[in-house]
Amino acid sequence: MAAATPSSYSITIRLHTEPDHAVVGQVATVIAEQGGIVTAIDVADSRHDRLVVDVTCSGIDSGHTGTLVEAVEQVDGVRVHKVSDRTFLIHLGGKIEVKSKVPLRTRDDLSMAYTPGVGRVSKAIAKQPQDARRLTIKGNTVAVVTDGSAVLGLGNIGPEAAMPVMEGKAALFKRFADIDAWPICLASQDTEDIIKAVEMIAPGFGGINLEDIAAPQCFEIERRLQESLDIPVFHDDQHGTAIVALAALRNGLRVVEKDLADCRIVVAGAGAAGTAIVTLLLAAGADDIVVFDREGCLSGDDESLPEAKLELARRTNPRKVTGDLTAGLEGADVFIGVSAPDLLKPEWIRDHMVDDAVIFAMANPDPEVDPAEAAKYAKVVASGRSDYPNQINNVLVFPGVFRGLLDAAAEDVTVEMMIRAADAIAGVVTDEELNPSFIIPSVFHSDVTDAVATAIAGEGKRTTGGLGTEGATGGGHHKGHGRVTHKEQDAIEEVGQNPHRED
Amino acid sequence: MAAATPSSYSITIRLHTEPDHAVVGQVATVIAEQGGIVTAIDVADSRHDRLVVDVTCSGIDSGHTGTLVEAVEQVDGVRVHKVSDRTFLIHLGGKIEVKSKVPLRTRDDLSMAYTPGVGRVSKAIAKQPQDARRLTIKGNTVAVVTDGSAVLGLGNIGPEAAMPVMEGKAALFKRFADIDAWPICLASQDTEDIIKAVEMIAPGFGGINLEDIAAPQCFEIERRLQESLDIPVFHDDQHGTAIVALAALRNGLRVVEKDLADCRIVVAGAGAAGTAIVTLLLAAGADDIVVFDREGCLSGDDESLPEAKLELARRTNPRKVTGDLTAGLEGADVFIGVSAPDLLKPEWIRDHMVDDAVIFAMANPDPEVDPAEAAKYAKVVASGRSDYPNQINNVLVFPGVFRGLLDAAAEDVTVEMMIRAADAIAGVVTDEELNPSFIIPSVFHSDVTDAVATAIAGEGKRTTGGLGTEGATGGGHHKGHGRVTHKEQDAIEEVGQNPHRED
Repeated sequence: MAAATPSSYSITIRLHTEPDHAVVGQVATVIAEQGGIVTAIDVADSRHDRLVVDVTCSGIDSGHTGTLVEAVEQVDGVRVHKVSDRTFLIHLGGKIEVKSKVPLRTRDDLSMAYTPGVGRVSKAIAKQPQDARRLTIKGNTVAVVTDGSAVLGLGNIGPEAAMPVMEGKAALFKRFADIDAWPICLASQDTEDIIKAVEMIAPGFGGINLEDIAAPQCFEIERRLQESLDIPVFHDDQHGTAIVALAALRNGLRVVEKDLADCRIVVAGAGAAGTAIVTLLLAAGADDIVVFDREGCLSGDDESLPEAKLELARRTNPRKVTGDLTAGLEGADVFIGVSAPDLLKPEWIRDHMVDDAVIFAMANPDPEVDPAEAAKYAKVVASGRSDYPNQINNVLVFPGVFRGLLDAAAEDVTVEMMIRAADAIAGVVTDEELNPSFIIPSVFHSDVTDAVATAIAGEGKRTTGGLGTEGATGGGHHKGHGRVTHKEQDAIEEVGQNPHRED
Repeated sequence: MAAATPSSYSITIRLHTEPDHAVVGQVATVIAEQGGIVTAIDVADSRHDRLVVDVTCSGIDSGHTGTLVEAVEQVDGVRVHKVSDRTFLIHLGGKIEVKSKVPLRTRDDLSMAYTPGVGRVSKAIAKQPQDARRLTIKGNTVAVVTDGSAVLGLGNIGPEAAMPVMEGKAALFKRFADIDAWPICLASQDTEDIIKAVEMIAPGFGGINLEDIAAPQCFEIERRLQESLDIPVFHDDQHGTAIVALAALRNGLRVVEKDLADCRIVVAGAGAAGTAIVTLLLAAGADDIVVFDREGCLSGDDESLPEAKLELARRTNPRKVTGDLTAGLEGADVFIGVSAPDLLKPEWIRDHMVDDAVIFAMANPDPEVDPAEAAKYAKVVASGRSDYPNQINNVLVFPGVFRGLLDAAAEDVTVEMMIRAADAIAGVVTDEELNPSFIIPSVFHSDVTDAVATAIAGEGKRTTGGLGTEGATGGGHHKGHGRVTHKEQDAIEEVGQNPHRED
C-alpha cells in the first residue's frame, strides 16, 4: 500500500564482510533495489581481515524487512551476523521512569522530603484534604488505566501486553502536556472489578484516562466512575477520538462550505469510538446521522439490538434508512469510518455520495478505503495514517484535555468542554492554511495543547483552595502548566507559608 | 531535647528594613540568641528607602521557629513580611515526576514508541508474557501501597494525607536503588478491598511495597498477597524495620561480644514492627525474647489475647516471665523498643539490665528513652533519630531489598533473604570502624544498597527468559542494576533481535 518509511519497521543488520568498502556500497544498493531505505551505516569494528558493519534500514512491514535481510545475505562476501529491531530496542527496560524533583543529597534533604519533616505536610493535608493537589503530585497526575481487552487493533491481549501502549501514552502525556501519567494495567476484565479498582486508586491521581477497554463494558465503567469519583474520567478511545473527529469535520466542512446541521453523515462502526463520535456530533448540531455496524444499518425500531446500540439507534437515522452501506451513502455529505479495512469501495463515493464528499477513514492500521483512491472521488479525505495528508490522531486531544482538567482542578468532563476542545483544535488551522489536504494540525504544532487546555479549563470548576496561591498564579489557567507556575517565586512564598504553626 | 539542626523546621523569613545593613546583622544575632541557626541571608530587593531580605533559619520545632520570628519582629526597623516553610516549599507540586526515556521529537519517534510500532511489542509480550519484564517498566517498578491507616506516628490520616510519605519513599527508591516506584494510596481500609486492589494493579509492577498499613490487618494483607501474586510483597514497616534492627543487633553484639542465641532480649511493642522483629530474631537464632505490649508481658497462656498476639506470645517468653517491664528487664542483655516515648526509665537499665546492655529505642519521633540518658548506663544505644549516633533507619533496607528482588525477578521474599540482608548491612561496618557509637552504616554509605541487593538476589529465582539476554548480562545479578545493564550494547543487540518475523 505504501513505500517504506523510516519508522516502526526499522532494523539494524550487523554484518561481517571482507575489509572491502565497496561491499558496503553493494549492500546499500540491494536494500534500495528491494524498496528499503538505508538510514545509517556504522562501521562497528575494523580489522585487517574483517569489517563489522551496522546497517540500519526500514521496510514496509516485517515481511519486507525479512526480504531486505535475505537480499543482503546474497551479496558476495557478506555474512549477516544478527538483525536487531529498533522498535524493540527502544522498548528495552520500558519507556518511562520516575525522577525525584527534590534533592536527596544530605541528611537534611532527607529530613525535609521524608521523615520527620514530611509528617508536617501530611498533617496539613489531613486537616485540609484539598491541599493534596498542591502539596503532592495529585495536581498533575493521571492514571492511564486499561484491562487490556481492546488494545489498538490487537484485541484482547491482556494487561501485561498492554503495558507498552500505556507507557507510550504516559510518555506522550509528559511530552505534550508536562503531565505525570502512570500506567495501571488491571488483572481482571470484569466490569465491577475494574470500577472498584479505579475507585480504590483514585486518591493519588488528579484524573483517570481509560484506555483500550472493550465496548460495551467501557460505557458502564466510564459512567459509573464519573458518578462516584471527584476527579475527571475520560475514555480516550471514545472521547479523544470523537473530539479529534469533530475537529477534523469542522474544518472539512469549512473547506466544502457546509453547515454540520445540514449534512447527511454516515458513521461506520458502532463500538466505543463510533458511539462517542455520534454522540458528540449530535451535541455539536448534527441532525442526520446513519450508523452502520457489522450487521448493517442501525434502526431504532430494531428491538433485537443490544442495549447500547439500541440507544444509539434511537438517536440516529431520522430518515429511516434501511439496507446496506450503499443505501446509507446515497446523497451523503460525510462518511466517518471507525470500523474495518476496505469496507468502503472508492467507486461508491462517486456513485452514491455528493460531489464534494468528506471521507474520514479512521480504521487502524488499515483504513476503510485507501486514502489515495478515495481522493479521486472525494473533496476531503482524512485517515489515521501518518503517511497521508490529514492524519486524525488522538495525540492532538488527550494531552490538552487533561492539562486543562488538571489546571482547573475539574471534577468532570462535560460535552460542552469536548465541543470547545474540538473547536480549539480546528481553530489552530488558519483560513490561510486551510485546504483539502490540511484540515487538521500536526501533533507537533506547538499551539495545540495550550489551545485545547484553555478551551477545557474555561468550563472547569476551580475546586482547590486553602493555601492561597490562586491570586498569585493569576487568571490564566493553563499558562505555564500549574507545576511551572508553582515555581514562580511569588506563588512559592504564598504557598510555603506554614499554615500550622500551632503544631 | 536537642539543639536546632538545619533540617525539617527550616523557615525563610522575608523582612522589610530600612536600607541599613547593620539591621540584618542584628536579625542574625537575635536568631542565634534564641537558639536558632541562620543558614542563608539573601537580599531579594534593594531600593533607596527599603531592603527586602530573606533570612533562612532553623529551629527545633515549629514552636521554636515561632519564637524566632517573634524575636526578629522585635528588632528595631524590621517588619516581617511573610514566613515561608522550606519543608512545605519543597513539597509544592509533589516530589516525583515521570520522565520519558525515549525521544519523542519526530513522527518517526512516535511511530516506534507509540502506534503503530508499539503494537508489535505488545504482540510479542502477548505471546511471551515473561518478556514484559524486559520490554516494559515492569522489571524495575515497585508500587508503594498504603491505605493511610498508620502513617508515621500520625495514625489513621487517610490516603491523600499519606501521599507525601509515599512520594518521599518513591524518591528514595530512585535515589538509592534506581528503582521506579509509584505511590498507590487506596480509598478503603477494608482488608478485602486492599487485597483485591493490589491484585488488580499487580500486572504493571515488579514488586509491592506495603507501607503504613495498621496491624493486625497488615499481617493478613501481606500473607494473602504473597500467596496470590507472582511478584514479591514486602511490608516495609514490618520487615524493613526487622532487617535493620537485626543488622544493628548483629553489630551491637559484636561490640559486647555475645551470641544472639545466648541473649535475653526484651521487645517493647507488639504491633507490625515488633512482631516482625521478633519473628526475624527467632529465625536468626535468638532464643529468649520477652515481648511487652501496652497491657504488659505477652504470655502464651493468655487465651484472651487477640489472634496475632497470642501467636506471637506462644513463640516467645520461654522463661514464663510475668509482671511489668522491669520484670522483663531483669538480667536482660538487649532492649528493643518499637512502642511509645519515654517508656523506659534510664535508671531501669542500671538497676535491672546487664552491665553491657544494648538499647535500641526506635519509637518515632520520640524514642522510648532519651539516647543520651540511656548511654550513661548502657554499652550500646541506637535510635531512630538522626541527631544521635546509631540511627536505625529503614532507608538502609528497602532500596537494596527491592533492587535485589527485581534483579532476580524474584516471586517472593524469604526469611533467609531477610537474614542475609541484615548480615550484609552489618557487614558494611568493618572491624576497624565498629565501636559503640558506630554499629550501623550511614544511609549514604555507597556500599549498602549493593550489599543488600546481592544478599537478596542470591536467593531469588531468575524467572525471566525468552529473548536471551541472560548470557549477555552475565552472572552478577545486581551489578549495574538491570536497567543499566540493558543498555550495554551486547545485551541490546541480543534482545533487540525481532523474535516475531512472521508477524
